[in-house]
Amino acid sequence: MSEISAEQREREAALVERVVASFAGTPDPRTRELVEALTRHLHAFLRETRLTENEWKRAIDFLTAVGHITDDRRQEFILLSDVLGASMQTITINNEAYANATEATVFGPFFVEGSPHVGLGGDVAGGAPGEPLWVEGTVTDTDGTPVVGARIEVWEADADGLYDVQYGDDRVTGRGHLHTDDQGRYHFWAVTPTPYPIPDDGPVGELLRATARSPMRASHLHLMVEAEGCRTLVTHVFPSGDAHLDSDSVFGVRDSLIVDVDQQIPTTPTPDGRVVTGPWARIDVDLVLAPAP
Amino acid sequence: MSEISAEQREREAALVERVVASFAGTPDPRTRELVEALTRHLHAFLRETRLTENEWKRAIDFLTAVGHITDDRRQEFILLSDVLGASMQTITINNEAYANATEATVFGPFFVEGSPHVGLGGDVAGGAPGEPLWVEGTVTDTDGTPVVGARIEVWEADADGLYDVQYGDDRVTGRGHLHTDDQGRYHFWAVTPTPYPIPDDGPVGELLRATARSPMRASHLHLMVEAEGCRTLVTHVFPSGDAHLDSDSVFGVRDSLIVDVDQQIPTTPTPDGRVVTGPWARIDVDLVLAPAP
Repeated sequence: MSEISAEQREREAALVERVVASFAGTPDPRTRELVEALTRHLHAFLRETRLTENEWKRAIDFLTAVGHITDDRRQEFILLSDVLGASMQTITINNEAYANATEATVFGPFFVEGSPHVGLGGDVAGGAPGEPLWVEGTVTDTDGTPVVGARIEVWEADADGLYDVQYGDDRVTGRGHLHTDDQGRYHFWAVTPTPYPIPDDGPVGELLRATARSPMRASHLHLMVEAEGCRTLVTHVFPSGDAHLDSDSVFGVRDSLIVDVDQQIPTTPTPDGRVVTGPWARIDVDLVLAPAP
Repeated sequence: MSEISAEQREREAALVERVVASFAGTPDPRTRELVEALTRHLHAFLRETRLTENEWKRAIDFLTAVGHITDDRRQEFILLSDVLGASMQTITINNEAYANATEATVFGPFFVEGSPHVGLGGDVAGGAPGEPLWVEGTVTDTDGTPVVGARIEVWEADADGLYDVQYGDDRVTGRGHLHTDDQGRYHFWAVTPTPYPIPDDGPVGELLRATARSPMRASHLHLMVEAEGCRTLVTHVFPSGDAHLDSDSVFGVRDSLIVDVDQQIPTTPTPDGRVVTGPWARIDVDLVLAPAP
């Protein structure tokens, strides 16, 4: 950065103060805190990088493209937040480690309200292609007490690396919800997660290519667990051995969330007698909920 | 802000470093500098404000709304940058004060490429309602040498406070360009600028209302002056006496750009013999260009 005169620094700093002062009448104190902090950090970024007018125009064009590709099925702003680690940082800030509670990770852009109720032992695959995966475990609080009737929401990509909403049709696959039984236990069928790229045919994909980053996510199953008196847990289960665990494009991996998948040969009987014509797999996932804040 | 444990700070700081490290392979050094700085400032904002997950969702929704209202005629991202002072800060950073050169100010979202050539003495109003305004002056360099053939681009709102592109039709009014003569002089007709609100029926308007800020811009005429060997000047002329000079919604006012308007009674002959049936006005605007960087 070339030498900046004291007068120039003064002009820039005075402008920051002028903008901050414009928010002085904000009625809600939290809103005022947020817009003032946003102003200071945004201006600090501009001043530190000496952003050029052309770079500013490119940033406007980039955000415009992010806005225009976003629709009911594609949320490019969440993707942008994800690849900048902002989603994971927000999760980290709001989900401080609590005793032995299961750690949280990113929500992602593919959750959809109103998933099918599959019930205990049901199949969230809903016809999605993939290797059958038996998932079972318990939901407890941090004292080890079973959480009865906890709502478990599951969503995942299929074996082709796509979520249902990424297809042009109205299919509902790879998602569902169920509740724990009277001993806090649950089990369901899903498909074994496989690695996939985040959608990279838009402006966020361009950003990843310009920065030589991979769009690949480590394979994972999304889980959200809600129960009265407990902090809602939004997390993933990551099968161990995935090649992308150290370079997950959205920084979602936590060591504690990596789980061994127990591969089964085709002739092994399934836990519930389901007839499976090929290989299948099983994982145990015990989930521990922190108390509500 | 409640007490944050050392472990928690450590987790948050480690995530920032993980994201910054992901950009280490960026081929272009300036791109790398920008994405790394963006990451650090964005995460600093999140950590300082302890942004909640709900606030994060509202931010995503806000940006989505900004993206969806933006089209060929409406640029809400520029408006957002304007009301946060980011546009003015970028202008300030890139247009350091240079000797007696005319100061720059914001570009705004209403410039359109391909304006009509009105020529010396022409009328940029193009039929827009408003009081006729005679604008004349010189373009010189900082040594006082006339700049011959400088291209002057002019654009402005009409007396109803609207730019042509804000109407639903294809009118082209309140914009045009001309060139200085062989003594660096220019003159043209326009309409006397009046104060107007920036478009406030979208998400940026909501932000202004939530922060009790006015959407009003001090009245102004946009000028862009380009000439070989000179720094391009993007600026405004602000008529003195406007009630919004101290609270311009985009922070564009500089004292040096405030100019007295010389009001004329209807019977005063116009400089070029144009027949004007009501009051008119005139201003002198001498523009001084810095050398090209």
